[in-house]
Amino acid sequence: MTIPRRQFAALLAAASAGLVLPRPLLARPLFARLRSVAPVIDGTRLNARLAQLATFGARPDGGVDRVAYTAADLAARAWIEPLLREAGLVLRRDTVGNLIGRREGSDPSRRPIVIGSHIDSVPAGGRYDGTVGVMAAIEVADALRVSRTALRHPLEVVIWMNEEGGLIGSRIVAGELVERDLDAVAVSGMTHREGITRLGGDPTRLDAAQWAAGRNAAYVELHIEQGGSLDRDGLEIGVVEGIVGIYAWDVVITGQQNHAGATAMVDRKDALLAASRYVAAVDRIVRAEGQAVGTVGRLSVAPGARNVIPGRVDASLELRSLDEARIQRLFETIQRATAEIGAANGTTFTFALAQSRGPSFCVPAIRDMVRTQARALGLTTNDVPSGAGHDAQSMARVGPMGMVFVPSIAGISHSPWELTHPAQITQGAEVLLQAVLAIDANPPVGE
Amino acid sequence: MTIPRRQFAALLAAASAGLVLPRPLLARPLFARLRSVAPVIDGTRLNARLAQLATFGARPDGGVDRVAYTAADLAARAWIEPLLREAGLVLRRDTVGNLIGRREGSDPSRRPIVIGSHIDSVPAGGRYDGTVGVMAAIEVADALRVSRTALRHPLEVVIWMNEEGGLIGSRIVAGELVERDLDAVAVSGMTHREGITRLGGDPTRLDAAQWAAGRNAAYVELHIEQGGSLDRDGLEIGVVEGIVGIYAWDVVITGQQNHAGATAMVDRKDALLAASRYVAAVDRIVRAEGQAVGTVGRLSVAPGARNVIPGRVDASLELRSLDEARIQRLFETIQRATAEIGAANGTTFTFALAQSRGPSFCVPAIRDMVRTQARALGLTTNDVPSGAGHDAQSMARVGPMGMVFVPSIAGISHSPWELTHPAQITQGAEVLLQAVLAIDANPPVGE
Repeated sequence: MTIPRRQFAALLAAASAGLVLPRPLLARPLFARLRSVAPVIDGTRLNARLAQLATFGARPDGGVDRVAYTAADLAARAWIEPLLREAGLVLRRDTVGNLIGRREGSDPSRRPIVIGSHIDSVPAGGRYDGTVGVMAAIEVADALRVSRTALRHPLEVVIWMNEEGGLIGSRIVAGELVERDLDAVAVSGMTHREGITRLGGDPTRLDAAQWAAGRNAAYVELHIEQGGSLDRDGLEIGVVEGIVGIYAWDVVITGQQNHAGATAMVDRKDALLAASRYVAAVDRIVRAEGQAVGTVGRLSVAPGARNVIPGRVDASLELRSLDEARIQRLFETIQRATAEIGAANGTTFTFALAQSRGPSFCVPAIRDMVRTQARALGLTTNDVPSGAGHDAQSMARVGPMGMVFVPSIAGISHSPWELTHPAQITQGAEVLLQAVLAIDANPPVGE
Repeated sequence: MTIPRRQFAALLAAASAGLVLPRPLLARPLFARLRSVAPVIDGTRLNARLAQLATFGARPDGGVDRVAYTAADLAARAWIEPLLREAGLVLRRDTVGNLIGRREGSDPSRRPIVIGSHIDSVPAGGRYDGTVGVMAAIEVADALRVSRTALRHPLEVVIWMNEEGGLIGSRIVAGELVERDLDAVAVSGMTHREGITRLGGDPTRLDAAQWAAGRNAAYVELHIEQGGSLDRDGLEIGVVEGIVGIYAWDVVITGQQNHAGATAMVDRKDALLAASRYVAAVDRIVRAEGQAVGTVGRLSVAPGARNVIPGRVDASLELRSLDEARIQRLFETIQRATAEIGAANGTTFTFALAQSRGPSFCVPAIRDMVRTQARALGLTTNDVPSGAGHDAQSMARVGPMGMVFVPSIAGISHSPWELTHPAQITQGAEVLLQAVLAIDANPPVGE
């Protein structure tokens, strides 16, 4: 179901106002399915619940402030727990505050198929990031319940705690964090230790929350793309190839602080001029390489006065790609460029590695199933990388992992302007449902 | 007296340690003068007193923290008052805290020749900025006293209060500030109103401190160059052409904040990338024009996180030149360049004028006298602009104004590394003395 671009304006206005669109418009291609006994997504309710979830931490501009551990986060969690139970799931909270609803399968020897996402937001975030995957997962469970569809595998719906703060909940489950990591201060101002306690968890019992490798039959997460590739190409479903690796560096550029009036242009060792050439070089080099993104998001100037030539700049460099060798090659090219930039005006660059994380790949079997099921629903697809991090990458350490993307209008995310059309959300949930059914029938190799 | 470059290392080390160099080395060309009755500068004492002044607000790195109105500033003022009296001057403090020592002339109809500078510093400043002119002026007065040289004109030695905070003392005297300007908070954290009170002045009596236009026969200020042109060219005295005009703008660059991982390079409206191209354009355009300097000294990035594409940058632009039309031309060229930069990646630039001050010119008669007297002393000279602001520009509104520069080693100023060789300071004082004598004999037209 493709919504013509010219209909978007009115629809988007309705969607951001939290209005539910009439079912015929939303679910036209699904209509035929309603007369069968097969499980089907209730798109109207899904979008209505998303709008209701957006009232927790609502901002006047339509976005949400629902940072993990805050009152808004706690209220949203309290609101969502009954929905999991109503969808026929047995709810438990693990020792670190992840919420897990489980439905048993017909074959007790089978490992669970896990679906879910998160409901915490960045400050001044949007109403779709994470929430789409969570509410769609609940609809999938409810569709199975209503249609009395038995799966061979158990089904688990997970709501990961504090995704935006660094995949905290899922990384604990994957065994990637230790207790001392919890002393870091989160965006809320609380430490993770305090936050976990607030969520009703026990920060001394990380071990009890861990999942061993091989624990899952599969993990599938539906999410908004956050980038603009699907929207730009007018496509409906993104078959995620994997989650890019991220390398980041702290960059220090040292020049010579001096008087902005008395120092001739030729005598300057302007750290900001060198930094500016570096920012432009990163853009140029990353574009020329392709298949990667590079960002300088942080840059501070010392002393930072209008009438003083900057003596020092502290900046960042972040490179992301599905191809780790590409990241290394880009970094080497950027380093060579900065050596030349520094030599040109007597400044020096130093790079200190601040973060390094390899890519996580979606298993081909799940990618194929997602693509096949989407096309069977009449939806257009493309294979896309995930430039953003997701709990799915923690789950890639536990078992086969896949992701489904729906478009982000204009590619805007981590912003109140984040938007996905209700029809697209319903489409994503339908693909998630069909993927679960397909995985249940043919679990990925390794099960 | 040119000091060979190869002797500098040891001399500089001695100078920064506050040691006084032996007189024969310092004052060789002046030696003959000692046997005459003509007034002569005591370079040894001048440099010893400069080193002593540097103990007020001394920093471990050799610089000074002597911000106006602070305890260090007050202590230095208390120390210097007796030196003015010992030099034969009648001391008064005006109603805003400027210190003025006066010696009467033989002709009661003559207006005063005024010399002086300031002793307050920037935070983490050097020991030569301002202080050289003040201590040299005291030596000039004392040389006249010792040699019993009568001038036709009164001579005044002025120590301006709070030069570094925006020429506060001299601008009040020139009638450029009104009482409400004193509510601004100075670098000390005090308002100027509080600061003036602390200096023993009365912030409600600005009128009483004012000097009417035509009040001075001349104003001559000796200062370190702060730039590197004299040092680079191996010259001893700068004959100042004028003080550059300064125009400054607050610049806002608006792009679109977005996810650094999910947003493809082609979809970005990166405000920092646009800002970086702007910084590089300012450098390129100002260099191509010549006879001007341009600086982007302030630049802050929002939101400033490593993993977020910057949506907004707040920056500055400062242009200085002796030629106001040149400043205007540069600004227009920079604006055109930023329009293109913005169009290239979907960002916008706005410029808001934050400061505009036209240039102040040294009168040709004083420039000629300074040049002639310096050359008569065997010193090498060049005509140079002052890129920095000085109290002399306030005095240009009151009467004929001139300035004498001595070199700043490596052009470093507003820094603990600021340095001028003791011999060069003595040379500057000697030129100041001879300029005063020449002005007394042939006051600039307008007297």
